[in-house]
Amino acid sequence: MPADSSDQKRILVVDIGGSNIKTLASGQEKRIKIPSEPDLTPDRLVKQVVEATSHWQYDLVSVGCPCVVSANKPVKNPINLGSGWVAFDFEKAFGLPTKVINDATMQAVGCYDKGSMLFLGFGTGLGTTLIKDGTPVPLEAGHLPYRKDRSFEDYVGKEGFARLGLEKWNRHALAVIDILRSACNADDVVLGGGQAELIEDLPDNTRRVDNRAAFKGGFRLWEKHWLRHF
Amino acid sequence: MPADSSDQKRILVVDIGGSNIKTLASGQEKRIKIPSEPDLTPDRLVKQVVEATSHWQYDLVSVGCPCVVSANKPVKNPINLGSGWVAFDFEKAFGLPTKVINDATMQAVGCYDKGSMLFLGFGTGLGTTLIKDGTPVPLEAGHLPYRKDRSFEDYVGKEGFARLGLEKWNRHALAVIDILRSACNADDVVLGGGQAELIEDLPDNTRRVDNRAAFKGGFRLWEKHWLRHF
Repeated sequence: MPADSSDQKRILVVDIGGSNIKTLASGQEKRIKIPSEPDLTPDRLVKQVVEATSHWQYDLVSVGCPCVVSANKPVKNPINLGSGWVAFDFEKAFGLPTKVINDATMQAVGCYDKGSMLFLGFGTGLGTTLIKDGTPVPLEAGHLPYRKDRSFEDYVGKEGFARLGLEKWNRHALAVIDILRSACNADDVVLGGGQAELIEDLPDNTRRVDNRAAFKGGFRLWEKHWLRHF
Repeated sequence: MPADSSDQKRILVVDIGGSNIKTLASGQEKRIKIPSEPDLTPDRLVKQVVEATSHWQYDLVSVGCPCVVSANKPVKNPINLGSGWVAFDFEKAFGLPTKVINDATMQAVGCYDKGSMLFLGFGTGLGTTLIKDGTPVPLEAGHLPYRKDRSFEDYVGKEGFARLGLEKWNRHALAVIDILRSACNADDVVLGGGQAELIEDLPDNTRRVDNRAAFKGGFRLWEKHWLRHF
């Protein structure tokens, strides 16, 4: 069996969130959810996941991490979790070939169809990933200036929500979707993240996904096309 | 000779500007410059180019157009030129296989090396094209909000230059380079366009190119890798 063939290999996907770790393996129907604690370290995370999934078979691992990731390793400690994440070697900890990418990027990969798709993750902040002709382009567009010396994220992240209230927040969320769609020439805008379900009156060519897309993205990562980007 | 082989085929590159049309063919050393008039139509442009280059041999044509281009055709009339450009069929007019793309994108393709490169075209406005892992991503980031209800382009385009004067304009140009580099996670920023040479104190990982890059981009368009994107 060739090393890069994902068809026959079974994949474990781990989606790390501030409240829960969710995991699913190829051929399984039901994901497993493990509560995450504010002091969670990556080595404890790996132990918990390996234990909780000990009845599953898998050959490869995909990890979605809620922080900036570079060269298969976290660059920062995720907000809302513990320490020890920077440069943590997940591949060594799992003892299996492992791909680690940003959680929003994993979700974006999972819902990509064709052309130019902009994924906006409405959560604590505003995650932004563009996928153009199958090439993932992680952006940091949430930090761009929006108005009154504040960034897009300052308006449509969780702090903005608390400051503005639902109605105003929704208005700004729609404005931000519109501005970033134009700036990126996106045909398709996908809204994910915990806050996305609060957005009302979605414009055309805009859809909402839940985090099943993250699992789909995690499985896709090992397909030949995506593999060359990560 | 296979139809998609660019190795043996000779290419004519046409770089359309508001003041001049510049053209160069494979194997030629010296470009030909034709003054462009404010009422220039695309059919007259093609006639002028064909006449001026009648002593050159070429099999394929690349056209860089100073306007939005989609599906090998201009979507708008270029500013500073005449009418009749929208949906003009250059391929039919030249009677040869022809690629038409935005002029800034052509220049960006010509200076792409690797990784994530952001091309900023400082001219009348601010052209923005990202190339990520060899995939061109035309952006419209110049229209994003910058400050005081004005866009990046309002500050660093020609009108901004007239309003701000060289020193302030330069300060804002450097700020805009910095903001857009971060937003796009670019490793390499390339400055082109007529105003780029005015920018002083370039930061690290920032380089300036002249419009020879446009010819290089025009030749590259027919290479297999780039061809699939245009």
